[in-house]
Amino acid sequence: MGEIGGFEVRHKDLLGRIGSLETKSGSLETPHMFPVVNPSVQPVPPREIREIGFNALMTNAYILKKNFREEALSKGIHEFLGFDGIVATDSGAYQALVYGKVDASPEEIVKFQEAIGTDIGVILDVPTGYEEDRERAEWTVEETLRRAESSLKVLDRIDVLWMGPVQGGVHLDLVKFCAEEMGKKPFHVYAIGSPTQIMENYLFDKLVDMVLTAKMNLPLNKPLHLFGAGHPFMFALAVACGCDLFDSAAYAIFARKGKYLTGEGTFSLEEMEYFPCSCGVCSTYSPKEIRALEKPEREGLLARHNLNVCLEEIKRVKQAIVDGRLWELLEARARAHPSLLGALRKFSEYKLFLEKHSPAVKRKGIFFFGFEGLSRPEIVRHKVRLKENYVRPEGSKVLVLLPAPKEKPFHKSPGVARILAGVGRGPSVHLCFYATPFGLVPMELSDVYPLSQTEAAPLDKESLEASMEEASAFILKQKYPKVLLVRPMDEGFSALERMCAKSCVKAGSELKVLRAKEAWGERTLKRVVKAIKGLIASGSGGASFG
Amino acid sequence: MGEIGGFEVRHKDLLGRIGSLETKSGSLETPHMFPVVNPSVQPVPPREIREIGFNALMTNAYILKKNFREEALSKGIHEFLGFDGIVATDSGAYQALVYGKVDASPEEIVKFQEAIGTDIGVILDVPTGYEEDRERAEWTVEETLRRAESSLKVLDRIDVLWMGPVQGGVHLDLVKFCAEEMGKKPFHVYAIGSPTQIMENYLFDKLVDMVLTAKMNLPLNKPLHLFGAGHPFMFALAVACGCDLFDSAAYAIFARKGKYLTGEGTFSLEEMEYFPCSCGVCSTYSPKEIRALEKPEREGLLARHNLNVCLEEIKRVKQAIVDGRLWELLEARARAHPSLLGALRKFSEYKLFLEKHSPAVKRKGIFFFGFEGLSRPEIVRHKVRLKENYVRPEGSKVLVLLPAPKEKPFHKSPGVARILAGVGRGPSVHLCFYATPFGLVPMELSDVYPLSQTEAAPLDKESLEASMEEASAFILKQKYPKVLLVRPMDEGFSALERMCAKSCVKAGSELKVLRAKEAWGERTLKRVVKAIKGLIASGSGGASFG
Repeated sequence: MGEIGGFEVRHKDLLGRIGSLETKSGSLETPHMFPVVNPSVQPVPPREIREIGFNALMTNAYILKKNFREEALSKGIHEFLGFDGIVATDSGAYQALVYGKVDASPEEIVKFQEAIGTDIGVILDVPTGYEEDRERAEWTVEETLRRAESSLKVLDRIDVLWMGPVQGGVHLDLVKFCAEEMGKKPFHVYAIGSPTQIMENYLFDKLVDMVLTAKMNLPLNKPLHLFGAGHPFMFALAVACGCDLFDSAAYAIFARKGKYLTGEGTFSLEEMEYFPCSCGVCSTYSPKEIRALEKPEREGLLARHNLNVCLEEIKRVKQAIVDGRLWELLEARARAHPSLLGALRKFSEYKLFLEKHSPAVKRKGIFFFGFEGLSRPEIVRHKVRLKENYVRPEGSKVLVLLPAPKEKPFHKSPGVARILAGVGRGPSVHLCFYATPFGLVPMELSDVYPLSQTEAAPLDKESLEASMEEASAFILKQKYPKVLLVRPMDEGFSALERMCAKSCVKAGSELKVLRAKEAWGERTLKRVVKAIKGLIASGSGGASFG
Repeated sequence: MGEIGGFEVRHKDLLGRIGSLETKSGSLETPHMFPVVNPSVQPVPPREIREIGFNALMTNAYILKKNFREEALSKGIHEFLGFDGIVATDSGAYQALVYGKVDASPEEIVKFQEAIGTDIGVILDVPTGYEEDRERAEWTVEETLRRAESSLKVLDRIDVLWMGPVQGGVHLDLVKFCAEEMGKKPFHVYAIGSPTQIMENYLFDKLVDMVLTAKMNLPLNKPLHLFGAGHPFMFALAVACGCDLFDSAAYAIFARKGKYLTGEGTFSLEEMEYFPCSCGVCSTYSPKEIRALEKPEREGLLARHNLNVCLEEIKRVKQAIVDGRLWELLEARARAHPSLLGALRKFSEYKLFLEKHSPAVKRKGIFFFGFEGLSRPEIVRHKVRLKENYVRPEGSKVLVLLPAPKEKPFHKSPGVARILAGVGRGPSVHLCFYATPFGLVPMELSDVYPLSQTEAAPLDKESLEASMEEASAFILKQKYPKVLLVRPMDEGFSALERMCAKSCVKAGSELKVLRAKEAWGERTLKRVVKAIKGLIASGSGGASFG
């Protein structure tokens, strides 16, 4: 075990991380969801939560202090709960948000958490909530920062980890300010405050803004916690945005209302005939059988299923991180609700940040489903490099723009070999491919990961247009003396021709266009070779062909 | 229990059906996947398959006849397998496809199936496979039809159900012919032959063509079986295309290769650190623990997991049918592989057939994620009705085309109330909304299902263009004397304006366009009222306003 408070990252994908956070009660693997245990009412005993597979839970220090003070102090929180794993304690800030004031000072709350021996504590901050009023929102941020300062001052134990919540709500400049300030203070874990109402109202696009704004302004070497995130259909999204930890009572709250959670959304027990799950509960009972039970038993079984499915989804997210397939999981989960797809589309605003912090090479190829995927790091990275660092091969004079051949990597296509055999393998002629989703692929890069490891669905308009823009920007930037564009007849490629023509005019390049029914057909290849030779011959004299 | 061979449908969605097929060994609920049991090698004993939750399996009559003839005849197939559920038997046609000829006549094979007491038998047909050669493909169809005829003639038992396979492969006209001819013969179940290679190569768009071509030409009151479909990520697709039954040995074949099935795709046990599943196997063992086991045990556990996940997916599909949410499940599953998304896009070619056979009203609203969704029955139905049956209200003279308000149903929007209060609720003015994904919604229809029960993600270009086309087609068809188009400033709506202008010219309608920053803002509403009054005043005289 490492030093208490240490956080080691083992795997990354997008901003998601498999890491371990060291606490005095053991190592906590991220991403993790703390099931929230209400000390007063609890449908699943903490011991059973542990048996299901959660080695860390969260409970509420404020409720403990109010209703179970002496017992919690004398037994300590682990014995009090009958849970020998890791215990995190929340501070009552959420209760303050919902019920107005709480009757304890911020300093009392942190001292109490120390006294009961929590593993990970939270200061009593002031949640901004979904507060529209700017002035009130500003005050919550300032007061949260003041309380962070005063709370840290009274701490004595060095074996307890502390969370510093970032407030500001939907006011992103306040989130940024609060993250910067909070990031300067010595917390072990940072946290996104105030998302509850935003999540309850399915405003997942706003959540992406909040989380990423905080993430971009916090120390990246510390874990980030998202308060109140408990529906499995959003775990992949939250993890991709950089949340390492969650806590939620959703499993219990939904169970109380007869709701059944899944990675694809929420079902009402009332309306179910089949359980789409293989967990212990769902393979033992039918929906009808559970409906027939008394309320406490029914609720307990639903809560157990809900916990099982949360754990399953966390494992699904982890395996996706290991495989470098978190984006693919996001695409699937974005079809659980239109607002999750809206959130995924928000990634386009943060794509450079995502690219910067995602691994460059993965062990698997990528799947491309549609224009949302243009924000994924692998594609952004190729485009950025092409734009910023790429220099065309020395001596290249004729750019030949070809549609992507069927074979991968492109340079191994028989059609490409035919063209090269026809014109000779000299430096003058440079073959490039316009290929979604990457836009433009110079032949010599065509086996660089993941250009040949990508499988794409038939194209949508947005993706096609983006690719055409890449190709024409490339012409503009690289300024070849001559350009040969080989394009299919289809009307859809007229736009490409127009865009290339415009770029050629601006770049001072001579353009020849060759329209073909079958772009890689025998006849076309002959025409391509002839056209290239023609361009060379009409050329600026001294071109040499090997 | 109903009559043997009877098929009753209880729930429908798209072409998917929850129904029950009566056999002599009990009732079989569809959709169902028969796990295929190889009498020679079997990683999970039939008794355990039953315990997992499958009450019907399939085995191979040809292999039985060849290797276990006497024992199978004396014990009967149920006792031979130690399985007291429903047993279907395949005929060896697949073996003929793979190994060339089989050494039994079609008549011998069906008589043997009768003799061992199978519940559902298959005639020995000739699979077309993924045969490119037209002549050979034609022969397989003709020979299959001849064998169907001769096999049916030798049958004695009336308590055995028979499957009639439809051949033709990728030659869709042959599939159509074969389906028509096979459909005239008295089979209890029809089946799609030859899809194995197509599925192995992930040519799911071709599969959609094959299945739907067969489906459209077969009796719809009989169940349809898809041979060899065993990967859970494609169950939703196959069921949506109208397949009621599947059989597959994939759970065992994949297990033998160390492959782990999920609804999101295939994993290699080698590469797994986490099991994204809550089944008995996956909640007991970690991937590392299973890797450490001896091969037979490892294979058995993987096969059990694979069976669990197949059953889970079948239950997921069933619940989706009950909820009328099969399309939403298709959208999610289409992100398991680009070729599945390609297959979903194929539905646009069959959308009228899908519409005709899908239920009109559902208990839940629909989610719209992108242009693929334009093929779903609810949307197609609205557009067809608007085009074919809709007549504008009597006396309507001014069409007011408004963007969709935030509130649903649209006619309850305060903005709409303001407009109506301003111009009076007479018959002359007809408010309509252009709203994706439905295109155009006349106010009086705005609470008809599912126009107000739809949640849509932010729009993609294809969907937006489709909506604009609907709106301009409506103008052309309904020929109002005057049209007021209220549109947002955004450049994206210029196309709408152009299209409406063209339609107005053709329809002889006077067009006024009102561009607004906030289409439902206070100021805009006043301008709209003024514009409507202006159009009325400039009008053709006798208009009366109540």
